[in-house]
Amino acid sequence: MDTNQGSGRDGRWQPVQAVRWSDAACLLLDQRLLPDEETYLRCTTPAEVADAIREMVVRGAPAIGIAAAYGAVLAYRLAGEDEVRLDEYLGVLGQARPTAANLRWALRRVRAAAGPAAANAWASALDEARAIHKEDIEMNYAMGRLGAELIRVPGNVVTHCNAGALATGGFGTALGVIREAWSQGHVSRVFVGETRPWLQGSRLTAWELSRDGIPVSVSVDSAMARNMRDHQPSWLIVGADRIAANGDVANKIGTYALAVLARAHGARVMVVAPTSTIDMDTPSGAQIPIEDRSGGEIWAATGAEPPPPGIALENPAFDITPAAMIDVLITEKGIIEHPDEASMQTLMGADPGT
Amino acid sequence: MDTNQGSGRDGRWQPVQAVRWSDAACLLLDQRLLPDEETYLRCTTPAEVADAIREMVVRGAPAIGIAAAYGAVLAYRLAGEDEVRLDEYLGVLGQARPTAANLRWALRRVRAAAGPAAANAWASALDEARAIHKEDIEMNYAMGRLGAELIRVPGNVVTHCNAGALATGGFGTALGVIREAWSQGHVSRVFVGETRPWLQGSRLTAWELSRDGIPVSVSVDSAMARNMRDHQPSWLIVGADRIAANGDVANKIGTYALAVLARAHGARVMVVAPTSTIDMDTPSGAQIPIEDRSGGEIWAATGAEPPPPGIALENPAFDITPAAMIDVLITEKGIIEHPDEASMQTLMGADPGT
Repeated sequence: MDTNQGSGRDGRWQPVQAVRWSDAACLLLDQRLLPDEETYLRCTTPAEVADAIREMVVRGAPAIGIAAAYGAVLAYRLAGEDEVRLDEYLGVLGQARPTAANLRWALRRVRAAAGPAAANAWASALDEARAIHKEDIEMNYAMGRLGAELIRVPGNVVTHCNAGALATGGFGTALGVIREAWSQGHVSRVFVGETRPWLQGSRLTAWELSRDGIPVSVSVDSAMARNMRDHQPSWLIVGADRIAANGDVANKIGTYALAVLARAHGARVMVVAPTSTIDMDTPSGAQIPIEDRSGGEIWAATGAEPPPPGIALENPAFDITPAAMIDVLITEKGIIEHPDEASMQTLMGADPGT
Repeated sequence: MDTNQGSGRDGRWQPVQAVRWSDAACLLLDQRLLPDEETYLRCTTPAEVADAIREMVVRGAPAIGIAAAYGAVLAYRLAGEDEVRLDEYLGVLGQARPTAANLRWALRRVRAAAGPAAANAWASALDEARAIHKEDIEMNYAMGRLGAELIRVPGNVVTHCNAGALATGGFGTALGVIREAWSQGHVSRVFVGETRPWLQGSRLTAWELSRDGIPVSVSVDSAMARNMRDHQPSWLIVGADRIAANGDVANKIGTYALAVLARAHGARVMVVAPTSTIDMDTPSGAQIPIEDRSGGEIWAATGAEPPPPGIALENPAFDITPAAMIDVLITEKGIIEHPDEASMQTLMGADPGT
């Protein structure tokens, strides 16, 4: 097992960086090419950043937020003093993907910090984008510590999709907790489904964990019920793309299935997400817009083209896990057990400035 | 929607044939190439039939049984009067895949009918193989009628993998019930997951149903919990690869997950299989050998080669659904509600000659 590339239990961790800012450009690790190729896409316009978000070059709600923040810096640079163009650019970024709350949250933060279009406003925008990026990493470590405190008995865990360094500023949300718990000797093995149709489980999570020397097993998504019965995981640990005011969680399609299966097999359900993922303006999961992506993303695997007539392809990118199925929500501000409207309100009201 | 190729509600049904016997050869529709190409592989030796079974040219327990029966005819032809070679040939066929009960059941039937190796024994073997094939189709229709009687209120149904004409002599087990219930106006839409890693759901079941003009929706396997919540299917209807004496069912990986999810969403679970799939010598699911196939079948989708070190790929082809989760088992001999050891014994004892 190769433990040289990532962190080992010795704690020397060299994170992969999904998003970087360099030389007036937003650099995005093209996650569609992983694990075979580590290539950064250089974006110098907000439209290029929006395209990259839409086309899954960068994914994961926190990483999308950071990319959007740097995209907003590019918007300020290109718009100069033209407020109409600035609005247009930020609008394009805001529409890139509908579900992740962090996207519009990050744009609002940069907008508030940099103010109206002005010749030098992009410098303030860049300061704010860098702050968002830095805070995200710090929150990952904070959540990692909080979540790991709940995993005191060594055992197996299940995760889904990728909520790791690749989905965030670095370290990860769900994988941050798993990394921290593993470094404390409390994770025996991580089970992850390949996460069709984009394979974030097999291509990204397995790659991230194997870089760190953390034992990981990959199977088809539908094998996870069998894995739970045979390997008795103590926790299902996932990230989130948006969390509604009542605690309902939108996350990668399949999360809801795993939550039902976890409860049927005695595993607890942990959701790990920074408060930037929480959208108190969305009352419940029923109001969270779920992105329907192209059916071609499913059909392409068959190698046949086009699909025979009469076949409906349904490709929702996310599903909703009801708050009632979530045992614990980990945020950088603290932990909520069995989240509901009241506890969410208390959490978010505790520090209205953030 | 193209309803010309298969059957319509008018009942003129032109089945696809997974297995044929012609001109001293076993012809197998190469299901790896569907739905793009309809090509038959011509097998003239038992080893070729065994390879085709192992490599998924033909799949589905009843179709595997029929292919093995014709393979046994080839074994008799090639062995002539050489009993040792006959044993060897039949042994190769019997080892082709470990889980499907029908494979060894069919070989035993041909062996019993054709007797010891002899110059003209292959003719008796062929008669028996043809009888197995013909009976399988008749049983499909019988099970279709029995199962459809339980679906009296029009609604959605869920299936998994392919238990259709392609998996049998024709018509199908689970899809036989669905076809019959649909022709009676009691199926609104069929939901099927793509069924990774071989995509029998998207490539085979969707194709079969669309040929018949039956509305079918395909999604990734992990979307099925969301589909159940949103579309409230009344039944999960699946086939089986082996059924133990206590009613535990081995079927395509993911069946167990769907059974748990069905019960959580108020859908009932129907298993449709001829009694040739029932193995009274296997006490329970724990004793059913589950085939572990190559991890490469999962990893290939990533396009990366080889997998990074430290990633364990687990590719069980089947899982076990406990009898306690099965609402009804449909066989050609009749229906069992909530199968258990006693009711299975009664069913199988009713006609010891078969």
